[in-house]
Amino acid sequence: MHATTIGTMTTNRAALVDLIDRYRPGWSLEQAFYIDPAIFEFERELWFPRQWSLVAHASEVPAKGSYIVRQLFDEEIIVVRFGDAEEDVAAYYNVCTHRGSRLCTKDGRSRLLVCPYHAWSYRLTGELQTRQNVPEHVDPEELGLHRVPTRCVGGLVLCGLEEATLPDVQPLVEALDGGLRNMGIDRARIAGRKSYPTKANWKLVIENFFECYHCQPSHPEYFRLNAHEPWTTVASGPGGLDKVTYGIARRSIFGGRKTLSDDGQPVSRLMGGRSAYDGGETSFSLGRLSFVYAVSDHVTLFQMIPRSATETDVIVTWLIDKDADADIDTDPITWMWDVTTVQDKKIVEDNANGVVSRAYRPGPYTALEDHTSFFVQTYLSDMRLLITGERTGGPVWQSPVKRSGLKRDEATEAV
Amino acid sequence: MHATTIGTMTTNRAALVDLIDRYRPGWSLEQAFYIDPAIFEFERELWFPRQWSLVAHASEVPAKGSYIVRQLFDEEIIVVRFGDAEEDVAAYYNVCTHRGSRLCTKDGRSRLLVCPYHAWSYRLTGELQTRQNVPEHVDPEELGLHRVPTRCVGGLVLCGLEEATLPDVQPLVEALDGGLRNMGIDRARIAGRKSYPTKANWKLVIENFFECYHCQPSHPEYFRLNAHEPWTTVASGPGGLDKVTYGIARRSIFGGRKTLSDDGQPVSRLMGGRSAYDGGETSFSLGRLSFVYAVSDHVTLFQMIPRSATETDVIVTWLIDKDADADIDTDPITWMWDVTTVQDKKIVEDNANGVVSRAYRPGPYTALEDHTSFFVQTYLSDMRLLITGERTGGPVWQSPVKRSGLKRDEATEAV
Amino acid sequence: MHATTIGTMTTNRAALVDLIDRYRPGWSLEQAFYIDPAIFEFERELWFPRQWSLVAHASEVPAKGSYIVRQLFDEEIIVVRFGDAEEDVAAYYNVCTHRGSRLCTKDGRSRLLVCPYHAWSYRLTGELQTRQNVPEHVDPEELGLHRVPTRCVGGLVLCGLEEATLPDVQPLVEALDGGLRNMGIDRARIAGRKSYPTKANWKLVIENFFECYHCQPSHPEYFRLNAHEPWTTVASGPGGLDKVTYGIARRSIFGGRKTLSDDGQPVSRLMGGRSAYDGGETSFSLGRLSFVYAVSDHVTLFQMIPRSATETDVIVTWLIDKDADADIDTDPITWMWDVTTVQDKKIVEDNANGVVSRAYRPGPYTALEDHTSFFVQTYLSDMRLLITGERTGGPVWQSPVKRSGLKRDEATEAV
Repeated sequence: MHATTIGTMTTNRAALVDLIDRYRPGWSLEQAFYIDPAIFEFERELWFPRQWSLVAHASEVPAKGSYIVRQLFDEEIIVVRFGDAEEDVAAYYNVCTHRGSRLCTKDGRSRLLVCPYHAWSYRLTGELQTRQNVPEHVDPEELGLHRVPTRCVGGLVLCGLEEATLPDVQPLVEALDGGLRNMGIDRARIAGRKSYPTKANWKLVIENFFECYHCQPSHPEYFRLNAHEPWTTVASGPGGLDKVTYGIARRSIFGGRKTLSDDGQPVSRLMGGRSAYDGGETSFSLGRLSFVYAVSDHVTLFQMIPRSATETDVIVTWLIDKDADADIDTDPITWMWDVTTVQDKKIVEDNANGVVSRAYRPGPYTALEDHTSFFVQTYLSDMRLLITGERTGGPVWQSPVKRSGLKRDEATEAV
Repeated sequence: MHATTIGTMTTNRAALVDLIDRYRPGWSLEQAFYIDPAIFEFERELWFPRQWSLVAHASEVPAKGSYIVRQLFDEEIIVVRFGDAEEDVAAYYNVCTHRGSRLCTKDGRSRLLVCPYHAWSYRLTGELQTRQNVPEHVDPEELGLHRVPTRCVGGLVLCGLEEATLPDVQPLVEALDGGLRNMGIDRARIAGRKSYPTKANWKLVIENFFECYHCQPSHPEYFRLNAHEPWTTVASGPGGLDKVTYGIARRSIFGGRKTLSDDGQPVSRLMGGRSAYDGGETSFSLGRLSFVYAVSDHVTLFQMIPRSATETDVIVTWLIDKDADADIDTDPITWMWDVTTVQDKKIVEDNANGVVSRAYRPGPYTALEDHTSFFVQTYLSDMRLLITGERTGGPVWQSPVKRSGLKRDEATEAV
Repeated sequence: MHATTIGTMTTNRAALVDLIDRYRPGWSLEQAFYIDPAIFEFERELWFPRQWSLVAHASEVPAKGSYIVRQLFDEEIIVVRFGDAEEDVAAYYNVCTHRGSRLCTKDGRSRLLVCPYHAWSYRLTGELQTRQNVPEHVDPEELGLHRVPTRCVGGLVLCGLEEATLPDVQPLVEALDGGLRNMGIDRARIAGRKSYPTKANWKLVIENFFECYHCQPSHPEYFRLNAHEPWTTVASGPGGLDKVTYGIARRSIFGGRKTLSDDGQPVSRLMGGRSAYDGGETSFSLGRLSFVYAVSDHVTLFQMIPRSATETDVIVTWLIDKDADADIDTDPITWMWDVTTVQDKKIVEDNANGVVSRAYRPGPYTALEDHTSFFVQTYLSDMRLLITGERTGGPVWQSPVKRSGLKRDEATEAV
């Protein structure tokens, strides 16, 4: 928990509940949800600690002692491989228990984690190793690093802020682990990574990600390649506050293309032990803020990281088979989602610039935005329960009529 | 209106009224009026929506379908020519009624205004043109653009935030239209425009603009050319909250100069159908935040745009006759007010840097700052009425003794 | 005093007192003390006005009429030499009493201080000189500059924000003046100055400065030269809110070095009329935020200037004898403390980045950090008294066991 602050904004929970209760289903949110730092603070205290998020690919901590510094919401964490088994990955808040300094300032590999300030050292499993100088009245066992709940699934590392508030991640692991391995994600390496800091509330980023109504006007490259085939849900987790949300969906690639490259031709080695291109695309959603798109020869990971009421980091990572050529040309691999995410950053920022106006009013979602609309309803239902403790029915997902022309919605939204 | 915010600062209207009531006439304002974001928020809600402001010159929307993106206080608006008549200019908040995106990201010309996000389109008169995908239960007639009150006068486009709170602009139009046309403003084109973002409260910008006591120490170029002749008021509007403020004044140019250039020699074609240089300068004030200075061969427009408690944009636009040479040298035209506004930006920012100190106390206005003093009193009287609803007498303008050495005060302040 | 603000944060004095009362002696502070703007505001109103700070060296105002613009906490002040005697130095807030403009925008020398805005002028002793245009009903005698309490001691200029709240500086002057003169500080000139803006709360900067436990891991250059000899206290002032804090301590330079240069060899002319290197280092603390380190041939001054809850300026100034060669190579003089302060900036910023985490908890100070621990306790005891008016016992300094390996603690902390 955040320390008590002495000067606090007058935060009106009743006013927030009122605002939630005034919501008209099928319409976008009231302005305050997109711009108000006080609502972000509520989300930070109540909603974010209930979410599992993708923080790394297992190849980033390849050997015992490998550690990396990564972002989990507004927190910097250290992800460490502490043993030789695949699942021997832990994470800690990047805070020395001596005086609170950042412990690791860059990625590395070491037998111990050593603070650069006063050289206090910690074992890979988090316990304080240092004994010298620790005052006698202090129990060093109580000075271990603050743990970050962590789980590995099919080559991906998921984390959450607080053990006490997180839903059980096991149903997600069971549902997705096989599929992720089939896609070869557990035997992949990173071909590229790029960050797209977006000046917009995280919900505008997600709303955009959950619909492809905008694809024709906004994404000519993506629309040409990708936006013609419907998704079929393979599996989906129930969602809600107490249960981890997940989903798998699959569709064919349009026009007989082998993969999602500019010309449809292969861009890397086949993944997951495949012997041939399967002509399809598989999407995975892991919680509400992490997404995976896999085709036969490469995989794209998406991390959405809320940073403030008006700032969200979007991190895209491209995976290929670990045995792909060392000098492979990565441009054809990263091209489509780089072009598309640059466009998304712009349209979402324009959306943010508009909703701040005194003329903004909630507008109607169309049928092509039903996953976005459902996300918004789910978010409000979660927030209401978290603030009041009262469980309302909550929205129920109505499977939409099959249709083409969608980018990501049916694939990424789990119900 | 701004959406409800959930975390609000404790805003003490009573404390603000107290601060107003403690004001000593003839002295500068208490520090809070120059730096406190809460007072800016009061102004944003109460005072700005009562002001008409200059937003464009008519030549910027020359033909049916021409549209431009401009700033009106903290709002981005679209100014559109929707028909062939001179007055066929409308303005809209730059917010799509679908999801709230910015609708236009740059100036252009088009038959319809089309949102880049999902391609919703609007007629030039603001109605939603799109029907496809609009949910059946939603009336498209209710999804027209949010209008910005707009009025054309003598080639200038004025706007205000809200119809309901604006005073009637008709008296201003009737009083100034002829004079602006006499100056040729309706048949002008833009020779130059420059923005001077100023890190100071907007009232410090206006206080500086309303006195020329500082001209001798701060503006050597301006003082040499311009600061020796008294103004004569030609017309003035009553001002106050319910009535639009305006003014016209006139003076001779010092030393037999033809125009306000460095050497007094012509800088462009004569404007307004003149056959000779008339040796004079005419000033117009349009509301409290927009000013026009006209000499025989060019015109200078000033827009003061409050952006936050400590930031104000000053935009200066130079006009010449539309039939002036296409390759005319504009440096001699823009020289004087560019030099002078750069100097004003610096002295006003130094003023802002001083008033933030714990040592700042209100200081006495001299007789040479009587228009500044009157502006401050009028502002306080307006604010008090807006907050309490109680009408006090309000300040009454006492025509000052004629004197020379003034820059702008008698000309620009209307009573 | 700061003007009334109309929108104020709800500031909970009771919550702050609670937080102070929950403090566990021997542990670092709760997070809020390092990040909360509301606590900084308390410090700004209550604690800073009780502190004397070093603002300049006397050589910066060498002659009558010399004036310099400097920073005192969040205020810009003008330090002026108004007469020919050594102690004829005054300081004023940099605010014109006419309209509040900054009066001086750079250092200079003049018979009068003249405001660039409207040319109001002030005598070197602060009185308004201008009479022309001052309204008749206003007494010009009441429009003198707002004075900053100032005192010269051994070539240094100390200032504080408010006469009414500052402790008597006389005990400090009496205790340190001779020692500073012995070091030749009154006959020195500036060889270099550098600012190290540090993104951290000022208390983290001071906590770091008061201990040398971090020197071995963080300061290899300093540790090699400097960190092996114990300090001996020569004099110390009582500290606390009502009494000015000061201290003098002395130690030998390690390994027979003459001075604190990389190779131990002389870097400038001997200071203070010395005829030989004395092999020692003398430290002076002046209040809680200013420090002086003197060796035989150069002196280093430290000013810590809190700027916000998360920003502190550290200014380091190097002095040498005024008769040193004009073209002396200053790199060997500035080298050690420049290298070390760059390192301190980084480790303190990493500390600040860690304490902001939700995982931060107060940690235990070791015996090597006892001066840091004492500073923290003193700070809390001061703050509690300032907020409640209740005097508690307050911490009592226990002289630590002699030990080597310390950088600055025993030297700089006065009890």
